[in-house]
Amino acid sequence: MRHDWLADRWVIIAPQRTQRPSDFVFRPPLALDDQDCPFCFGHEMHTPEAVACYHSKRSSGPSQWKVRVVPNKFPAVNAALRCAGVLAEGAGSVLLDDISSDRGHGHHDNSIDLFRRRELTGGHEVIVESPKHLQSISQLDRETTQLVFMAYRDRLHYWLDERKLAYAVVFKNVGLDAGASLSHTHSQLIATDILPTDIQRSVDRMQHFADKESACLFCRMAEDELEQGVRVVEQTPDFLAFCPFASRLPSMLTIIPKQHQSAFQMLPDSQLEQLSWLTHRLVRRLERCYPETAYNFIIHTAPSCQRHSSSFHWRLELFPRITKVAGFEWGSDCYINPVSPENAASSLRAAGV
Amino acid sequence: MRHDWLADRWVIIAPQRTQRPSDFVFRPPLALDDQDCPFCFGHEMHTPEAVACYHSKRSSGPSQWKVRVVPNKFPAVNAALRCAGVLAEGAGSVLLDDISSDRGHGHHDNSIDLFRRRELTGGHEVIVESPKHLQSISQLDRETTQLVFMAYRDRLHYWLDERKLAYAVVFKNVGLDAGASLSHTHSQLIATDILPTDIQRSVDRMQHFADKESACLFCRMAEDELEQGVRVVEQTPDFLAFCPFASRLPSMLTIIPKQHQSAFQMLPDSQLEQLSWLTHRLVRRLERCYPETAYNFIIHTAPSCQRHSSSFHWRLELFPRITKVAGFEWGSDCYINPVSPENAASSLRAAGV
Repeated sequence: MRHDWLADRWVIIAPQRTQRPSDFVFRPPLALDDQDCPFCFGHEMHTPEAVACYHSKRSSGPSQWKVRVVPNKFPAVNAALRCAGVLAEGAGSVLLDDISSDRGHGHHDNSIDLFRRRELTGGHEVIVESPKHLQSISQLDRETTQLVFMAYRDRLHYWLDERKLAYAVVFKNVGLDAGASLSHTHSQLIATDILPTDIQRSVDRMQHFADKESACLFCRMAEDELEQGVRVVEQTPDFLAFCPFASRLPSMLTIIPKQHQSAFQMLPDSQLEQLSWLTHRLVRRLERCYPETAYNFIIHTAPSCQRHSSSFHWRLELFPRITKVAGFEWGSDCYINPVSPENAASSLRAAGV
Repeated sequence: MRHDWLADRWVIIAPQRTQRPSDFVFRPPLALDDQDCPFCFGHEMHTPEAVACYHSKRSSGPSQWKVRVVPNKFPAVNAALRCAGVLAEGAGSVLLDDISSDRGHGHHDNSIDLFRRRELTGGHEVIVESPKHLQSISQLDRETTQLVFMAYRDRLHYWLDERKLAYAVVFKNVGLDAGASLSHTHSQLIATDILPTDIQRSVDRMQHFADKESACLFCRMAEDELEQGVRVVEQTPDFLAFCPFASRLPSMLTIIPKQHQSAFQMLPDSQLEQLSWLTHRLVRRLERCYPETAYNFIIHTAPSCQRHSSSFHWRLELFPRITKVAGFEWGSDCYINPVSPENAASSLRAAGV
């Protein structure tokens, strides 16, 4: 077992589990053709109006978009904090279900409320990453990849710094097994007015580390990982990519800036270019190791409302979805990972890109 | 959003998300034929020796087993606490990987250790639920279903009360999407010498509720759910099955005893019979709503080592795996559930069994 200090959670590393026999034959989901894809060039009328568009330096004009940000047509988050031009008509009122309040039935008025509800407000956007019907960020060219990361930066800046939402996260689902419903390459941003409990815990843990050690948790981790070397997959002048010591899933990767940075959205262009290309390379490495794999990535940046946000070190987490979460994991939140992070890192380093 | 008081976690209920279009066509995994199935009658030599066998009252003799418990051949848990006859030879030493300790490299000897490891000891067993190559507990007859639950009770008793392990959990994975590697109907038991962090938290929360309210959390919940009625799916004289108010996944079900009980393994035969048949009926309801669905269930019983274990109320959680965990959920531990528990309960009640 290995301890994930940030999450305060033990993970079971059990390489012998990969030898289990299976009598299931996995069949990858079929992707339909792109005729009805709402994200393809020419189908812009099937999404809400764009809140941002990014163009190639080599072309111009609104019809030549490379990356396009639109409000999610089926948002998970109520857009009650409306702002002219930002959220499409009808995107709101998604959490107003028709059940009357469960409180006030009587007996326990001063007691702990087991039926608390609240509206969640914020935003839910889709970053469409190509006018063409591509499936993975690894199929984008270098310039478009950079435009995608520019969109991440701009939209995080908008929701956290301008709109002052408590929390915002950028995430990417590629493939049905990673939770995608559309195959056209895209990412999403969800911004909310409250901090999820788990994020609050990780903010508190980072601050606790800083108080006790007079150092940042991830700055220390970068130092240790570079010294040990066995889990490092790739680095650039400013970034380090490694397989975390207590990875919950096989071949999980974390990318962090080597120098302390709290807010992803403060990245200068030169670093954004480095980071976007490093991510592209790492996805290609994953796809070499696990062809056509479903995968996710998530950008964790400092929540805006926190007193302690300067102790936060932003990170990007990238992981293929090659195992299923089973009953034990659901029941205990204790994960069994059949691939040691050292072996995963070694395979990923060896995968030529 | 709804608050899960036990987990102290908010869940997003977003029914409009079910209207999302998808261009993926899910293809259920193929199950190979049963020729090589290690769990079928006659193939007993392909598993470690049984630690328990259960027979029909109407037959006798060792060849007539209905339910069979064997040590897992590919255990996730190190069997260092060996006990004659219980753990197969060679089942041990699964966590001894070949990396030397990461400590002692030097610079941070008195600091927080980011690379903590430990051996995990305990047991990992498989409960084979039929001599025939069936796929779901819903295909078992009433007597065999009861024998399965009897095996759960006996093995939990063994690991928690005789062997005094800190934690033991029974769980069932049906289908590839629920984490199963073999299709022959079976459950598993994992017992460990430490309590997973998340379980410790839920034990503490239950105790906190008891301290503050002078009542048990789940006894209170049973009372409230029966009063409100909208989330109740089915009940027997002693048990209540409902869709929890803040369900993380669609059509999650919880079964609890109406009277306070901490330890599942203390159930008398008459209640075990009720519970096993109620579970069987609920699985059939799920399978009516979602044909051939993958599903899990998990039995949470009081950990043995806890001072507060009498405030623990055991429960069985049952849920189909019809949605995928996406990047947002992985990143925030905040779940988006597209089916309100009230609608789920209504559909499950309507599904004739």
